Amino acid sequence: MDSTSLASTEYALNTLYILLSGAFVMWMAAGFAMLEAGLVRSKNTTEILTKNIVLFALACIAYLIVGYNLMYGAGGSDSFADDADFFFQSVFVATAMSIVSGAVAERMKLLAFFIFAVVLSAVIYPYQGSWSWGGGFLAEAGFVDFAGSGIVHMAGAAAALAGVLLLGPRLGKYKNGKPTAIPGANMPLAALGTLILWFGWFGFNGGSQLAIHDIDNANAVARVFVNTNTAAAAGAVGALLMTVFIWRKADLTMIVNGVLAGLVAITAQPLTPDPIHAAVFGFIAGLLVVISIITLDRLRIDDPVGALSVHGVVGLYGLMLVPFTDSNATWSTQLLGAGSIFGWTFITSLAIWYLLKVTIGIRVSEEQEYLGGDISECGIEAYPEFTGSTKR
Amino acid sequence: MDSTSLASTEYALNTLYILLSGAFVMWMAAGFAMLEAGLVRSKNTTEILTKNIVLFALACIAYLIVGYNLMYGAGGSDSFADDADFFFQSVFVATAMSIVSGAVAERMKLLAFFIFAVVLSAVIYPYQGSWSWGGGFLAEAGFVDFAGSGIVHMAGAAAALAGVLLLGPRLGKYKNGKPTAIPGANMPLAALGTLILWFGWFGFNGGSQLAIHDIDNANAVARVFVNTNTAAAAGAVGALLMTVFIWRKADLTMIVNGVLAGLVAITAQPLTPDPIHAAVFGFIAGLLVVISIITLDRLRIDDPVGALSVHGVVGLYGLMLVPFTDSNATWSTQLLGAGSIFGWTFITSLAIWYLLKVTIGIRVSEEQEYLGGDISECGIEAYPEFTGSTKR
Amino acid sequence: MDSTSLASTEYALNTLYILLSGAFVMWMAAGFAMLEAGLVRSKNTTEILTKNIVLFALACIAYLIVGYNLMYGAGGSDSFADDADFFFQSVFVATAMSIVSGAVAERMKLLAFFIFAVVLSAVIYPYQGSWSWGGGFLAEAGFVDFAGSGIVHMAGAAAALAGVLLLGPRLGKYKNGKPTAIPGANMPLAALGTLILWFGWFGFNGGSQLAIHDIDNANAVARVFVNTNTAAAAGAVGALLMTVFIWRKADLTMIVNGVLAGLVAITAQPLTPDPIHAAVFGFIAGLLVVISIITLDRLRIDDPVGALSVHGVVGLYGLMLVPFTDSNATWSTQLLGAGSIFGWTFITSLAIWYLLKVTIGIRVSEEQEYLGGDISECGIEAYPEFTGSTKR
Repeated sequence: MDSTSLASTEYALNTLYILLSGAFVMWMAAGFAMLEAGLVRSKNTTEILTKNIVLFALACIAYLIVGYNLMYGAGGSDSFADDADFFFQSVFVATAMSIVSGAVAERMKLLAFFIFAVVLSAVIYPYQGSWSWGGGFLAEAGFVDFAGSGIVHMAGAAAALAGVLLLGPRLGKYKNGKPTAIPGANMPLAALGTLILWFGWFGFNGGSQLAIHDIDNANAVARVFVNTNTAAAAGAVGALLMTVFIWRKADLTMIVNGVLAGLVAITAQPLTPDPIHAAVFGFIAGLLVVISIITLDRLRIDDPVGALSVHGVVGLYGLMLVPFTDSNATWSTQLLGAGSIFGWTFITSLAIWYLLKVTIGIRVSEEQEYLGGDISECGIEAYPEFTGSTKR
Repeated sequence: MDSTSLASTEYALNTLYILLSGAFVMWMAAGFAMLEAGLVRSKNTTEILTKNIVLFALACIAYLIVGYNLMYGAGGSDSFADDADFFFQSVFVATAMSIVSGAVAERMKLLAFFIFAVVLSAVIYPYQGSWSWGGGFLAEAGFVDFAGSGIVHMAGAAAALAGVLLLGPRLGKYKNGKPTAIPGANMPLAALGTLILWFGWFGFNGGSQLAIHDIDNANAVARVFVNTNTAAAAGAVGALLMTVFIWRKADLTMIVNGVLAGLVAITAQPLTPDPIHAAVFGFIAGLLVVISIITLDRLRIDDPVGALSVHGVVGLYGLMLVPFTDSNATWSTQLLGAGSIFGWTFITSLAIWYLLKVTIGIRVSEEQEYLGGDISECGIEAYPEFTGSTKR
Repeated sequence: MDSTSLASTEYALNTLYILLSGAFVMWMAAGFAMLEAGLVRSKNTTEILTKNIVLFALACIAYLIVGYNLMYGAGGSDSFADDADFFFQSVFVATAMSIVSGAVAERMKLLAFFIFAVVLSAVIYPYQGSWSWGGGFLAEAGFVDFAGSGIVHMAGAAAALAGVLLLGPRLGKYKNGKPTAIPGANMPLAALGTLILWFGWFGFNGGSQLAIHDIDNANAVARVFVNTNTAAAAGAVGALLMTVFIWRKADLTMIVNGVLAGLVAITAQPLTPDPIHAAVFGFIAGLLVVISIITLDRLRIDDPVGALSVHGVVGLYGLMLVPFTDSNATWSTQLLGAGSIFGWTFITSLAIWYLLKVTIGIRVSEEQEYLGGDISECGIEAYPEFTGSTKR
């Protein structure tokens, strides 16, 4: 026996850890699918499920063929298998794209959405990812985004915002200029999706340490787990208090967004805060997300699931929290990173959405929207026996 | 290379194992949420989901700030990261509290429930936990409760029983003194929740070995996995036979409780039995839980999901099984432990529930109960398009 | 420190890896349960859930008492715990049996199904498994089936086909000889089940490398993860294109079967292909499964969930793909293996189903079928408040 064989075991341990982390992040696809399926109306449920499964598939293929090389070049970690690194990175791009599907729900054409998914996964996301995780100018400038509050979540939200602005709100969302609540069809699915995401986030943040083979790395991963869990918990409490304060009701849709806000907020730096910091950061995220959702709603930016607030507004907030606990980061660099990521992703996405709009169109017809995406795009109702609309 | 670096790798392996086990246990929160959401009526579904998410959040925060120190003092394992230990322990207290939500479902005020969740997680659970896992008098007396049939499950059931007794049964549960079946709204959710719990239990029991870095520990964890799985499987079979014997039907709600009963039964000692023992223990647990549910129902103890039977009656049964295969345990010590845990948890819980009852109240008004918790407490229906009660 | 202690750590790492892989495969039980519950009508939902939970339980017990010894004799791996090996193998037999439940859904008697589950798990599956994984004549002949495209999936489909042929189609499936679409009741459950299976397959294929303790094994497992994910993604895309080509709609039920087809196809050999191969193999599987489902439908082979196509036709296709990338395999040997597995499993299953048919009967009465299995077999409706059929 020699040190080579111990190094081999360490390599194996790191590989197992990265692969499991990647599987957890893949599982987040189910979280987004259930969350979004729960928050849309029943007539658009099959369609949002179809979008979620297909976007994940397209993202993985597009990233395999084009995106990964664009983001990391020939490089990659040598502390674990290249395939493990690829797998872990590819499920991240799918996460970014999952954010888009919720925001544009209930009115976007399936085909336009799928084309955008390919472009985002092959080019838009990887190019900005190369600036930081690929060792580019943001990495050199000292920008810190541990697991992707900005690179994944805010980027996803920026792409979604561009689409939402070109799409406009759903029919019936605004009556006499005032927003109307459009209740989601299935709260258990929304809760399940949230808990899947909470669980999967241990892979998302915990895996982003990228190594666990010795005491220091193991301690780091453990701290990341605790902070991730604590921020999520505190986000739920923050949103709960906010909804009780505003409406005297415990609004579950806000509470689940509070959980996700806590998670997004801690994602930029889940290692250097202590757990009390994480609780405070998450709690404020829970307050913030409720305010943001209400505000966007009033601004006629119609986002059926609150994705722009959870991933965009809170993603930015997460980036700006980093310097409080991480002396390697500065607010100016964090702002530079946020601005670069948002600017690039928003502008390129706007261009792509615009091209799609003037060619194949991005919005379904009024009749199709009224009928719902399930019938018009998928030909299959989500709950044919429950809703009574088209009993067979 | 020297032994230090191998020790470092062993530490890392143990840390990964504990963190993953903790994540599995966190995932059990989704299991309880889905199980309970499936077994209540649709009008109380959003509310039970809200309770489950928020109780998990409150438990984590309360345990972070108060409970963990109370339970373990300055101590903690040195074989893996302190944060990993904290994370693993904190998801256990959330499990105990999850048991409560099901038993008091469909009639308890949200606010009272949340206050109780904080007190249980901060004080009641950790204080009794210190007696055994914290190295207190039960540990010294030789009480054995490997993963918490008593410390977690029976304790949760004791807290729930105190609440149920002060709450009374749901409106309409007893007609002319006889119990009426109140069917749950969504069987797929109940089945899903059960399978989530089955899966998560591999972390719950498997993680409680607390180390996996060498052959002996690895073999122990493997045995725990097999026994846990076998007991769950046998519990399903036992409950199935019992329901077919009694009603000539395969009653799914009893079968899922049979699975959980098998799991709870083996939890006090999943290591020393051989798999055939585990099968026998689980099978009897499956029989027992059906009898217990029917009996409690007749005693006018209204428990919508069967939690008192699954976690309380079977938790006690699990504790008393230990001496059959573990020569370190005696029935007298197991009884001492069971009595101490139950007595402390039941009495303190009763006091807290009583204080809440005479101050803010613990039960919703008759009108609210009739309307359902979703509208009265959360302002959101779980399935607005399916139930037709309040079409928008 | 000496090499013994490093070997001990390697053993521990492998054990953790196998146990987690087994837990992932156990979790696939939830995937099959949700998939099938989503694709049947609401009146047979409780029944299919009951079948899925109980079959898993019976399979584990039967394999513990009889099947494992029959398949592996006294042998077993010495690189990790015997219990870990048993656990990993036992969840595979449950997977095979899960395939059956979907194909015979909505018309089979519960009791007949359970008896068959015991026989398949105790004898039929293990005996053919001994030919390959148990070191028997197929292993000696050079047959390659890495994780069980044939041994698990095609075998499950063969057992199912025998049952389906003796059962006949559901009432109302064929009108004037032409197949009628019978929509599933709950698309979110079908999507959730598919994503659970996708996630669980990382354990199914990833764990089948059976070791991860050094660089070579770790790299192999990583490659298996990437290929598994890529094939699933490409299968979704293939099925999507096929459904759009045929119906001009994105048929979600076909897309989820495309995902599963991609997974089944790569399972026979997920290690030797490079990811582009995996994408091509999966894509074609996605095309193939749609054609197969349509064809079987026209042949009056009524399979409510498409299991015969996904696991049978694509399982065979997966076996025949192996020689393209694995020089150790030949088409003749793969055909020998496929023929042996199919022949044995189909014939013995047909015999058992036939015996059951002429004794206790395998099909429910017309009245029971009309009423649905939930009421007639389980006494519990799946969604008592949604369907309005039998309001209480």
